[in-house]
Amino acid sequence: MGDITAQFADIVGSHNLLTGDAIPEDYWHDEVLTTAPQKPGYLARPASAEEVAQLLKVATEQQLPVTARGSGSGLSGAAVPVEGGLVISFERMNKVLEVDTTNQVAVVQPGITLLELDAATADTGLRYMVHPGELSSSVGGNVGTNAGGMRAVKYGVARHNVLGLQAVLATGEIIRTGGKIAKVSAGYDLTQLIVGSEGTLALATEVIVKLHPRLDHSATVLAPFADFDQVMVAVPKILASGLIPYIVEYIDNMTMAALVHTQNLELGIPDKIRDNCQAYLVVALENLTPERLDEDVEKAGELMAELGAIDVYVLEGGSARKLIEARENAFWTLKAMGADDLIDTVVPRGAMPKFLAGARSLATEAGGAAVGCGHAGDGNVHLAIFCKDHDKKKKLMTDIFALAMELGGAISGEHGLGRAKSPYYLKLEDPAKVDLMRRIKQSFDPAGILNPGVLFAARDA
Amino acid sequence: MGDITAQFADIVGSHNLLTGDAIPEDYWHDEVLTTAPQKPGYLARPASAEEVAQLLKVATEQQLPVTARGSGSGLSGAAVPVEGGLVISFERMNKVLEVDTTNQVAVVQPGITLLELDAATADTGLRYMVHPGELSSSVGGNVGTNAGGMRAVKYGVARHNVLGLQAVLATGEIIRTGGKIAKVSAGYDLTQLIVGSEGTLALATEVIVKLHPRLDHSATVLAPFADFDQVMVAVPKILASGLIPYIVEYIDNMTMAALVHTQNLELGIPDKIRDNCQAYLVVALENLTPERLDEDVEKAGELMAELGAIDVYVLEGGSARKLIEARENAFWTLKAMGADDLIDTVVPRGAMPKFLAGARSLATEAGGAAVGCGHAGDGNVHLAIFCKDHDKKKKLMTDIFALAMELGGAISGEHGLGRAKSPYYLKLEDPAKVDLMRRIKQSFDPAGILNPGVLFAARDA
Repeated sequence: MGDITAQFADIVGSHNLLTGDAIPEDYWHDEVLTTAPQKPGYLARPASAEEVAQLLKVATEQQLPVTARGSGSGLSGAAVPVEGGLVISFERMNKVLEVDTTNQVAVVQPGITLLELDAATADTGLRYMVHPGELSSSVGGNVGTNAGGMRAVKYGVARHNVLGLQAVLATGEIIRTGGKIAKVSAGYDLTQLIVGSEGTLALATEVIVKLHPRLDHSATVLAPFADFDQVMVAVPKILASGLIPYIVEYIDNMTMAALVHTQNLELGIPDKIRDNCQAYLVVALENLTPERLDEDVEKAGELMAELGAIDVYVLEGGSARKLIEARENAFWTLKAMGADDLIDTVVPRGAMPKFLAGARSLATEAGGAAVGCGHAGDGNVHLAIFCKDHDKKKKLMTDIFALAMELGGAISGEHGLGRAKSPYYLKLEDPAKVDLMRRIKQSFDPAGILNPGVLFAARDA
Repeated sequence: MGDITAQFADIVGSHNLLTGDAIPEDYWHDEVLTTAPQKPGYLARPASAEEVAQLLKVATEQQLPVTARGSGSGLSGAAVPVEGGLVISFERMNKVLEVDTTNQVAVVQPGITLLELDAATADTGLRYMVHPGELSSSVGGNVGTNAGGMRAVKYGVARHNVLGLQAVLATGEIIRTGGKIAKVSAGYDLTQLIVGSEGTLALATEVIVKLHPRLDHSATVLAPFADFDQVMVAVPKILASGLIPYIVEYIDNMTMAALVHTQNLELGIPDKIRDNCQAYLVVALENLTPERLDEDVEKAGELMAELGAIDVYVLEGGSARKLIEARENAFWTLKAMGADDLIDTVVPRGAMPKFLAGARSLATEAGGAAVGCGHAGDGNVHLAIFCKDHDKKKKLMTDIFALAMELGGAISGEHGLGRAKSPYYLKLEDPAKVDLMRRIKQSFDPAGILNPGVLFAARDA
C-alpha cells in the first residue's frame, strides 16, 4: 500500500494525492439515493492525460479498482467508489482548450462544468446544448452517463453532441477518437462506445463537443390537461407538426403542486382549472425572429387547445424561467419529500400512457406511490418512488423496469445504470447481450479495474 | 464442400442457394473502382433472422468467410466477397414491417431500398432522411457504411437515424439493440457500434429508423464564386446564421462543366461568369410555409453575396431538381470520364481549403488530377483521382489520406473503408486503436468469418 501511495504521489504530486482518512466524505458518493457511500483508498487529482495514463497503468498492475469522478452530481451511483479503490477526480482538468466557431465545436477537459462552458461560449453566439437539470455537472460526467436533459428533444443527448474524445485505456494507452467532424466512416465508432459507458471502458481526458447557434427569441407555453393520456397523445402531434420545440415536458399534478408550493411559482392558473387537471404540458419554442416566434407560439397554442388542453398560458420571461428552473430542481423537491428511489426509464413516446398507468398501479399495489415529470418528447419518464419497505421497493422497481423493457424501452434514458441500477439490468437484460458487453469490456480493460460494480457485478469485471 | 452446400440448402431452401458457377457475376462485386471482383463459393438468400443465424453458425463452424450484401451499390468494396466464401444477400428481406407515426420511426428489413422506403412513408408526412446519391441503396447497406449524403448537414448520417437493430452475431445469437427510443443510457451502445462496421461485427436483420416531418416548401440557391477559398469561408457563416439548410454542397468548376455537359443542365449562368468561377455553392432550404421559405432564401442570397458570390441564382423546381440529381450522379459522370480512384475523406469544415489545395497539389506532383464536389457543410470531400500509374496512384492516395488525418479528419466520411481503403487505414491509423478494434472484433466474431479483408487484413481477422 505504501508503495502504491508513493507511485501515485510521483505521478500527480503529493499535494494532489489524498489517502485514507484524509479523503473528504464528498468523494465517497454522488447524488444517488440508494447506494451507500464508500470510502476510497486513494484520491488522485491529475492534471493531464499522461498523468491519467500513468495512474491507470499502476492501477492495472495492482488490480486496483478505479472510479472516475466529475462533479459527483450523478443520480445512479456511477461515481460511488469501491472501498479502498482509487478515485480519479477531474477537478483540475477543467479548462476550455478551444472554442472553434468555424467548425462549431469546443474542445474541453472533462472536469469543466456546464455553467463554465456556457460562460466560455456566450460571446460566440454558439452553445453546447446538452442541458441536464444540474448545471454544475461536468462534461466528463455527461460523456460517462450519456446525459440528456430538457433540450434533448431538439438537440439530442450527449451522444449526439460529443464528436470526439481523447481517452485513456485501462492499460495506459492514450487514444484519440472522432474529431471536429460531423461524420466519419472509418473503423468502429469508439467515441460512441465510450459515451455512456460510465467509466467502465476508458477515461475521457479531452472532449470535442458540438456547438449550436443560440436563437435569440424564445417563449414557453404551459397547458393543463384534465386527462393524463391526452398529454401523451398531444406530444407526437406537436412533434409531427413541423414546429421544432426545444423543450417538451410533462409534469403530473402532484409534482406540480410540490413545485409550486416549495418554489413559490406564480403561474396564474385559477384554482378551478388546477383542481381539474391531471397533468401539465410545457412546450418551449425558439426562433430566429420575434415574428416567427409569435407565429409558432400561436400555432402551438391552437394545436394544444385542439388536442384537449383546458387552457393555454404563454408564460412571460421571468415566470417561464422560474418554471423551467423548478422543473430542473424537481429531483431536489422530490428528494426533500422523502422519495425512496428514482426512476428515469425511457419508453417509446407512444407507450408513455401505458407505461405510466402500469407503473402507478404497480406502485399502488406495493403500497407506495410513483409521481413525477419527464421529457415527454423523448419518452423519458422520471418517477420518484415512495415505498419504505426495502424488499417491496426492490420488487416494485424490478416490475417497473420489466414493464418499460416489455414496452420496448430501457431502464435508463439518461442517468445511466451506475451501481444502483446495474443489478436490475443484469437481471432483466438478454444474457447474450450482457455476455457480448462483458467481452467488449475485457477488450478495453483486461484487468477489470474500471468501475467494477457498474454495468457488471464486481466479480465479473 | 458438399456437406456445406447441403447444410445451407437446408436452411434457406435449395432455390435460395446458388453455388459456384451458378452465381451471377453481379454478386462478385459492388461499385468500387479498384477492387477486383471475387467469385464467391455460395450465395444464400435468407428470409428471416433465424435463417441468417443458422447460416452464420455453420460458417463459424466451417471457418467460412461471409460477406453481407444489400444492393451492391457501395463504393469501397465492402460487399466484394472473399473467393470461395459465402455471400448473404438480403434481397428477400426487403419489407417495411411497420411505419409508426406516433413514435416517428419505421421498422424495416435490411434489404429494402431507399426508394421503396420513401414510397412506403410518402402518405404519412414523414421521411427517412438519409439520402446518399444512390436511391437503390439498401437500408442495410446504409447501416453497414454509416451512409451520409447531401441531407446529412441537417438530418445527420445513418448513425443519427438508426435507433435500433435486430442483429445476428457470427456465432448465431440474435440480439436486439436500441429501440423506438431517441435516447438510452443502459449498457454499451451496440447499435452505434454495429452501424458503420461494414459487416465485420454482426449482420443487421431489422432496422428501426427515425422519420422526420416532410417540409412542403423548398428552394435551391446556386452561387458561383471566383475563388475556391471563399466558398469554404462562406459555409460556416451560413451554418452559424441560424438558417438551417438541408443541403450545402460545393462543386468545383471542372466537375460542374462535366455535369452540365453530360447531363444537359440549364442553369442560366452567363459564359462570362462561368469562366471566372472556380467553384459553386449549392444551398437548399426548406420551411413550413412559403413565406418563411422566401425570407430564408432572400437571407441566404444576401449572405452569399456579402461573402463574395459573383452572383446568386434561385433555381426553379425543375432545374433545381436536375442540378441535385446531376450532383448525385457525379460519381457516374466522373467514372465515365475515366477516374482511377475515389476519395471521400472528411476533414473539419474549416480545414477544407487547406485540404483541397494540398490534395490538388499532391495530385499535380504525381502527374495526375483530383477534381470533385462534396458535402461542404460536413467537410466531406469527394474527389475523383485521375492517375494511371498504379504505384504513383497508391502513393498519392496515401499522401492525401495522411493529409486529411493530419488536419484532424478521416479517410472516409460516408463510403466506409471496405476492401479498397482498409490497407491505407491500417498503414495510417494509430496501432493502439487498431489493436483495440481488433479485440472488439474478436468479441463479436471469434472465428473472424465476417468480411475478412475489410477494416483488418484477412489474416488478422
